[in-house]
Amino acid sequence: MPVNLNLPESVQQVKGVRLSATAAGLKKNGNTDLVLITLPDTASTAGVFTRNAYCAAPVTVCRDHLEKSSSVRALLVNSGGANAATGELGEKNARETCAWVAELLSVDATSVLPFSTGVIGEQLPMDKIRSGIDRLVPALSNDTWFDAARGIMTTDISPKMATRTIELTDGTVTLTGFAKGSGMIQPNMATMLAYVFTDADLAPADVQQCLEQSVERSFNSITVDGDTSTNDSCILSATGQSGTRRLVSGTADWESFNHALLELCLELAQAVVRDGEGATKFITLQVNGGKDTDECKQVGLTVGNSPLVKTAFFASDANVGRIVMAVGRSGVDLDIDALSFAIGGVDVLTNGQPAQGYTDEKGQAVMAEDEITVTIELGRGDASWTVWACDFSHEYVSINADYRS
Amino acid sequence: MPVNLNLPESVQQVKGVRLSATAAGLKKNGNTDLVLITLPDTASTAGVFTRNAYCAAPVTVCRDHLEKSSSVRALLVNSGGANAATGELGEKNARETCAWVAELLSVDATSVLPFSTGVIGEQLPMDKIRSGIDRLVPALSNDTWFDAARGIMTTDISPKMATRTIELTDGTVTLTGFAKGSGMIQPNMATMLAYVFTDADLAPADVQQCLEQSVERSFNSITVDGDTSTNDSCILSATGQSGTRRLVSGTADWESFNHALLELCLELAQAVVRDGEGATKFITLQVNGGKDTDECKQVGLTVGNSPLVKTAFFASDANVGRIVMAVGRSGVDLDIDALSFAIGGVDVLTNGQPAQGYTDEKGQAVMAEDEITVTIELGRGDASWTVWACDFSHEYVSINADYRS
Repeated sequence: MPVNLNLPESVQQVKGVRLSATAAGLKKNGNTDLVLITLPDTASTAGVFTRNAYCAAPVTVCRDHLEKSSSVRALLVNSGGANAATGELGEKNARETCAWVAELLSVDATSVLPFSTGVIGEQLPMDKIRSGIDRLVPALSNDTWFDAARGIMTTDISPKMATRTIELTDGTVTLTGFAKGSGMIQPNMATMLAYVFTDADLAPADVQQCLEQSVERSFNSITVDGDTSTNDSCILSATGQSGTRRLVSGTADWESFNHALLELCLELAQAVVRDGEGATKFITLQVNGGKDTDECKQVGLTVGNSPLVKTAFFASDANVGRIVMAVGRSGVDLDIDALSFAIGGVDVLTNGQPAQGYTDEKGQAVMAEDEITVTIELGRGDASWTVWACDFSHEYVSINADYRS
Repeated sequence: MPVNLNLPESVQQVKGVRLSATAAGLKKNGNTDLVLITLPDTASTAGVFTRNAYCAAPVTVCRDHLEKSSSVRALLVNSGGANAATGELGEKNARETCAWVAELLSVDATSVLPFSTGVIGEQLPMDKIRSGIDRLVPALSNDTWFDAARGIMTTDISPKMATRTIELTDGTVTLTGFAKGSGMIQPNMATMLAYVFTDADLAPADVQQCLEQSVERSFNSITVDGDTSTNDSCILSATGQSGTRRLVSGTADWESFNHALLELCLELAQAVVRDGEGATKFITLQVNGGKDTDECKQVGLTVGNSPLVKTAFFASDANVGRIVMAVGRSGVDLDIDALSFAIGGVDVLTNGQPAQGYTDEKGQAVMAEDEITVTIELGRGDASWTVWACDFSHEYVSINADYRS
């Protein structure tokens, strides 16, 4: 079960955003698997996508459409098939689904962005998607956020949603987002499918900047298994229908908005980890004292991806030596006499020496918790970074051994 | 159980090498855990060690002694405790065990090399080691190779031994080696504890060169879980007692010897993978067509370490899309239209497109085998590299969750 994942009971609607979901028959279990989201012509939309060299067909089409189109009017998302490693036919199919949606909405095909998630290497069942789209258009509504969040799930146990309302100097702005992802999670751009909407008014170029800033410290700082998906995509769309002034860099309103955006992205990214495949523990890796943020992140990800560290967390076993091993193999040219670390506030290593007063009992007490913070001090600078990870359980192996069956 | 690990029924003794093993009480299960190996004053010895920044105390002492001593006369190896992350006391203890051995053998303390393997972060029980050493010295023998190979095991199910006899122009030369290692295996120098002995006559500087060449393509090309140990060490010692001439670079005898050395190291390294923690499959990742060997190795290790690829192998599931994902996230700036790959000779992807004639049934037939070769063609150069890996099973999680209990 997800680790302390608190789904909001309700979320704020975002002016201008409408959504619908249907079971098109792509998922074997009959759950909803096709989602349509429409945006007004006032919206400014930006996206960040996987850095996996072998990106999926819909990612290629998204990048192309974002470049060609002045305004994104619709997002079409299917679960139950990633449309990755599907060659030329896969890309042709992704473009065709956009054309179908565009025709029904009377917009340009390039103003529709396609997204897919599921098994890699299988072609989309185009007939099922065609009839699904026909049902989705008349069903669009402004209060179907939970349906949409459920429709994009694959191995996720829970949908992931977050919502914020902030008071700016001239009115109220809303942000609501949802995400999916549970395995193949070490996003190197954005996690597999996250969508954030706001009615704030933002210039198109600023939407991209705001998104990239927030993603770097949220979705790009989590890991479940170290595997980067072919389909990772994160979209921010600002509909501009809040009635507030356009946000301008350097103002207090700009800071308020970006703070709320980062908080919301963090909540969604952490929800992905809490619902990580087989997760039983939620681990925060706080790395301080680095020369730069890159090396802090590298140390955090190496510890967070170490199968030996992760199995020790699963077992609630204070096998703290494995954390030393993982820090040491991170590829950073560490001064080991400057290295210190603590788990749950209990010092384990101080300046390279076993910490005074550390006992296995103290370590075990921390490891028994389901939320554990590891604080690593590199002692060579002022930079910091935080990475979130989960443990590695029998359930992870079961989920991924049985995924296609 | 290990995957097709064939232990030789007997091994060739190496002139000048004597060994003994005892149960000193470091392992909770009462198995042998302390091993002494002595070498004649004619021996030339070289070592390669972990690149983990946080290397263990015995590794620090080994490096120091190899620098200070003109001749290595003894190796002392304990399992049941890694003596890593043990601070100043750990290093003092490692030096003291060398001094004890040196006194009993009447050699310099710097001519003794210490090695440890086991749980990280606990101090060695010095009294048990002291009485163990007292029993080891009178028990030294030239035919106790299997006892020594068993005495260095931790989570290994089987000892790993290999032996070769080669005919040089002026006589016969023998090579015999053993290794341990099952988890925390992605050696970045040499796997956790491998010892290779030969009676060939080699100049001290040449021993190091021969060892480094062979290790790079054997121990440094395997992975079980991507974790690099704090204690990895590989030793080659040439006793020079074969009666054959000193080997000189550029001669046919030199080539024969180095060929046999690489073959022997490969056999031991592959034995570590076959006995990898929880392994049920032995995977060969053959990467061709790279710009250089580094990028081939990087692709091979990324695929071999991907938890999603490894769980698919465990499940005998032809979820081939995960191989595409892992190649794509390897960090190499691939031309995806040039990428092809096959499993067990069955083409899956050809020049970035789904291969003609590939079916899930064909893929499943390959995945059902316990030895599987993945051939990856990068299509951007002439370089090749081979990496060996195993799958990721429930048993891996169990072994590492229960390791300290």
